[in-house]
Amino acid sequence: MVEKKGLLYEGKAKKLYQTDEKDVLWVEYLNQATALNGAKKDQIQGKGELNNQITSIIFEKLSEKGIKHHFIKQLSPTEQLIQQINMIPLEVVLRNVAAGSFSKRLGVPEGTELAFPIVEFYFKEDALDDPFINDDHVLVLDIANKEEIEFLKAEAKKINQALIEIFTEAGIRLIDFKLEFGRLADGTIILGDEISPDTCRLWDLLTNDHLDKDIYRRDLGDIVPVYQEVLDRLTKIA
Amino acid sequence: MVEKKGLLYEGKAKKLYQTDEKDVLWVEYLNQATALNGAKKDQIQGKGELNNQITSIIFEKLSEKGIKHHFIKQLSPTEQLIQQINMIPLEVVLRNVAAGSFSKRLGVPEGTELAFPIVEFYFKEDALDDPFINDDHVLVLDIANKEEIEFLKAEAKKINQALIEIFTEAGIRLIDFKLEFGRLADGTIILGDEISPDTCRLWDLLTNDHLDKDIYRRDLGDIVPVYQEVLDRLTKIA
Repeated sequence: MVEKKGLLYEGKAKKLYQTDEKDVLWVEYLNQATALNGAKKDQIQGKGELNNQITSIIFEKLSEKGIKHHFIKQLSPTEQLIQQINMIPLEVVLRNVAAGSFSKRLGVPEGTELAFPIVEFYFKEDALDDPFINDDHVLVLDIANKEEIEFLKAEAKKINQALIEIFTEAGIRLIDFKLEFGRLADGTIILGDEISPDTCRLWDLLTNDHLDKDIYRRDLGDIVPVYQEVLDRLTKIA
Repeated sequence: MVEKKGLLYEGKAKKLYQTDEKDVLWVEYLNQATALNGAKKDQIQGKGELNNQITSIIFEKLSEKGIKHHFIKQLSPTEQLIQQINMIPLEVVLRNVAAGSFSKRLGVPEGTELAFPIVEFYFKEDALDDPFINDDHVLVLDIANKEEIEFLKAEAKKINQALIEIFTEAGIRLIDFKLEFGRLADGTIILGDEISPDTCRLWDLLTNDHLDKDIYRRDLGDIVPVYQEVLDRLTKIA
């Protein structure tokens, strides 16, 4: 049994602890919700539990589909074990359907099916409000090299295909999502972070109802029953 | 002699007229200066004349260096003839040194030499405030195809090399600049618009003094003597 050690990092939605095993971290999902880069912040009872369970199911399903990631196993309703990776300071966003900032910035109505899945990079740097950047910026800021950029794009598209299969089975439409990747000691890049209604835009396949954090971002109601609905649907197909 | 016909388009800094020759336009440079996408606007006596002359010299020098563009000839201090092209709604920005929005958004101090020249695309759409976009956006918005995107990047870098040679000879450091391209009837893409202290960030090679529109954007003084200085230096090497 792995033993929990000192706190390594506290983020907006998770705490990371070291363990007595090398390169293995203990994650605790928090009940905190944030939006607008932390400008909006609330404690929401039950959220950590829901995201931990949803993420755990999805990572397990991604394993079955041959996607490499940092998830080892779920420990408790709010805890999981992950492999420690050296995080790349990028939010890799993949969009299947226009929504959110994409719609606003480019004048494409929310809900417009895109001709093909597009990838965007955001520089993960709170002080700069995570600015949207292009490939040249990734290179010049020395965040990743050319081969790594191509890998990140290809891997995001592969993960998109896998997630579409998973969510479609659960009666959910995958609009867009954010991934974070990290490097193992040998430089291999694998998927990290979480995959949940906090990091994906999910719409009901039939009604197009929001099943994600837009409920919170846009003050559309209580996210707990909505996240619970996502968990229930994933549990049914798990 | 080409004859000027009806007004085709009035922009922030130029008026375009049709002529009695097919695919040939008559350009009149205006004395208007704008910044912040038109939020700041002023009439500046002499500015149109300076930009028309500066652009004319630069386009002639680019011809000598084998760059294809829309410029035909200067007609008067404020007028020139150009080839009509179907403008691509992109601002193609090339940066050699960090400055302006790049510095602010990415936290790189103004004046930092970049490891290599970087290219950025902005979607030219006033209503959206010309948003910064990536290659996938260019494709999905159907602005240009993959081959055209690669051509635009390569051509911007070629033009950068040519402009660095020209400006260095004139004792000027080329920090960054904006280009616009258009398509001929057969689809060939050539350089259009203007190249002037309105569209380039130019610093004195020795003192790093601003010799460009930042004088206006940042309220640092009168742009006319500064643009005149750029014209004088270019005239000397012309």
